[in-house]
Amino acid sequence: MDPGNGSDILPEELTASVESFFDTAPPLQDSSLISHKLQAFIDRNSKSSEGGGPVRVVCVTSGGTTVPLEQRCVRYIDNFSSGHRGAASTEYFFKAGYAVIFLHRRGSCQPYCRYLPEDSFLDFFELGEDSSIQVCQSHSTIVKKAIGDYQNAVERGQLLKLPFTTIFEYLQVLRMVAISMRPLGPYGMFYHAAAVSDFYVPWESMAKHKIQSSSGPLDMRLNQVPKMLSVLRKEWAPMAFCISFKLETDGNILLQKADMAMKKYHMHVVVANLLATYKREVIMVTDNGSINVCSQDEYSDVEEEMIKILVDRHSKYLEQYRIEIIGLS
Amino acid sequence: MDPGNGSDILPEELTASVESFFDTAPPLQDSSLISHKLQAFIDRNSKSSEGGGPVRVVCVTSGGTTVPLEQRCVRYIDNFSSGHRGAASTEYFFKAGYAVIFLHRRGSCQPYCRYLPEDSFLDFFELGEDSSIQVCQSHSTIVKKAIGDYQNAVERGQLLKLPFTTIFEYLQVLRMVAISMRPLGPYGMFYHAAAVSDFYVPWESMAKHKIQSSSGPLDMRLNQVPKMLSVLRKEWAPMAFCISFKLETDGNILLQKADMAMKKYHMHVVVANLLATYKREVIMVTDNGSINVCSQDEYSDVEEEMIKILVDRHSKYLEQYRIEIIGLS
Repeated sequence: MDPGNGSDILPEELTASVESFFDTAPPLQDSSLISHKLQAFIDRNSKSSEGGGPVRVVCVTSGGTTVPLEQRCVRYIDNFSSGHRGAASTEYFFKAGYAVIFLHRRGSCQPYCRYLPEDSFLDFFELGEDSSIQVCQSHSTIVKKAIGDYQNAVERGQLLKLPFTTIFEYLQVLRMVAISMRPLGPYGMFYHAAAVSDFYVPWESMAKHKIQSSSGPLDMRLNQVPKMLSVLRKEWAPMAFCISFKLETDGNILLQKADMAMKKYHMHVVVANLLATYKREVIMVTDNGSINVCSQDEYSDVEEEMIKILVDRHSKYLEQYRIEIIGLS
Repeated sequence: MDPGNGSDILPEELTASVESFFDTAPPLQDSSLISHKLQAFIDRNSKSSEGGGPVRVVCVTSGGTTVPLEQRCVRYIDNFSSGHRGAASTEYFFKAGYAVIFLHRRGSCQPYCRYLPEDSFLDFFELGEDSSIQVCQSHSTIVKKAIGDYQNAVERGQLLKLPFTTIFEYLQVLRMVAISMRPLGPYGMFYHAAAVSDFYVPWESMAKHKIQSSSGPLDMRLNQVPKMLSVLRKEWAPMAFCISFKLETDGNILLQKADMAMKKYHMHVVVANLLATYKREVIMVTDNGSINVCSQDEYSDVEEEMIKILVDRHSKYLEQYRIEIIGLS
């Protein structure tokens, strides 16, 4: 786990496609607000923690990005992701003392809301005779715990929620987050649980209006999204500890793909998972072997053990970093 | 508004593409449960209402359908739709005494939840000192009204919620709903507010596994979804009162497209709207002219006036139907 891995130079071709992506993307509407929030969050959390060392900050990305097919967007390609993994992981990172930037798809699963109903939360509540709001007896414990835990995290100032919908928004905000986390050096972590589109339609070549359905079958050509993980590792936040995910449907190619991602993007850990079993089973691939993690029963989260392992790896990474600094000085 | 409009014969080509769509679609997992719920709902609501006449039943479709691009679905095409229109309309149909089958996209906006927060409903609540759950003062009225109205609708047994995600689920459930509503004759109404995909990838020709991103740009060919509105009007529920929606981004073609839909699918009303203004402005196209409807201010719903007009048209339709029956006997 060489902290310097990220500092190589990007291939020219990638640099060109990255530049072209950002130059032609529709600009973020609220970038100055996001920038302001980020700065305040990093300032607050980069001061020493109670234990003496700096606070560790993790950016958890969560949910799927969309790819608009029309500029005035009616249709878009979406990536399957409930955001459950990111939401659960955020809760365990809090428990471990991390401050969390929760970069999430609008409307996806939120921390501490995982056990709440998806469609109609009204079913949880009823009106008392004095027209006070009461939680149905059967759900009372869950809802109370959710509200309590959530408010605790918010009050401690250790949760920053940033939403996205399209691939254009996601990558622009990710870049802002990564660059503001750069000063944290190895205390920063990226946990890329979001399902990010591999293909997109460049804004310039996109249909301006809704595609009409009267003219037979629809042919589409989608470009590859530039591999931003490389750019994050090499330019935006080269010292941060980086975890990416590899989701496949075919078990025969899973580990090979995870291994490739590990080497190609210089990740510290790649979490490999299959669509059919991702909720209860993952393989954590590192540069010195891989670890199988399963949830013990249907009531326990696989994320609990995953985050424990990652926090431990991050500690070792920081330790190694300190040794290198001392060795250099 | 000829009630008999729907009973023409379908063109052979359409019949073939409809059959092929349903034959190759992945079968519904819970079709017997849906069928049971539908039957119970129609039985309960087809008895006379308090006023003497049969209860009117409307099927409100709401939210967008998805088109999977892979059989083990990671990527899919989605249609923009929050489901706000369908949820708001459902509330006004209740007010007008209709029983509502709310055929909605999973996770989309629900009736009586429109003013509740999208992402984190936890912000609405706080724990009191006795660890009871309290609604923050600022939101108290809205939440109380939502819970009260919702429970009233549920208790009256006049709300049946049926969820869908893919175009395959949507069209299969819609067919079941339409066929079970057929016995209601002209007392049934269809209000097609859902954003239904125009294109799809037939299940058989779909990639089995996740499409790999390493092999350059992605070329896709999508087939047209058979025009099921015709089938609904002509075969599934020929006597029902039918409203469809036309959403466009280009104002220059909107009315022409709405008019075409009106004639092609024998709709009784087509609601034409533009993406940029659909929340506050619609044009209701009928066979004797069109009506512009706007919301009066930012606090009022355009759906209130829309539903008033539709209920009135539906009454006239029923009246005409009764005259024809008497005329025939």
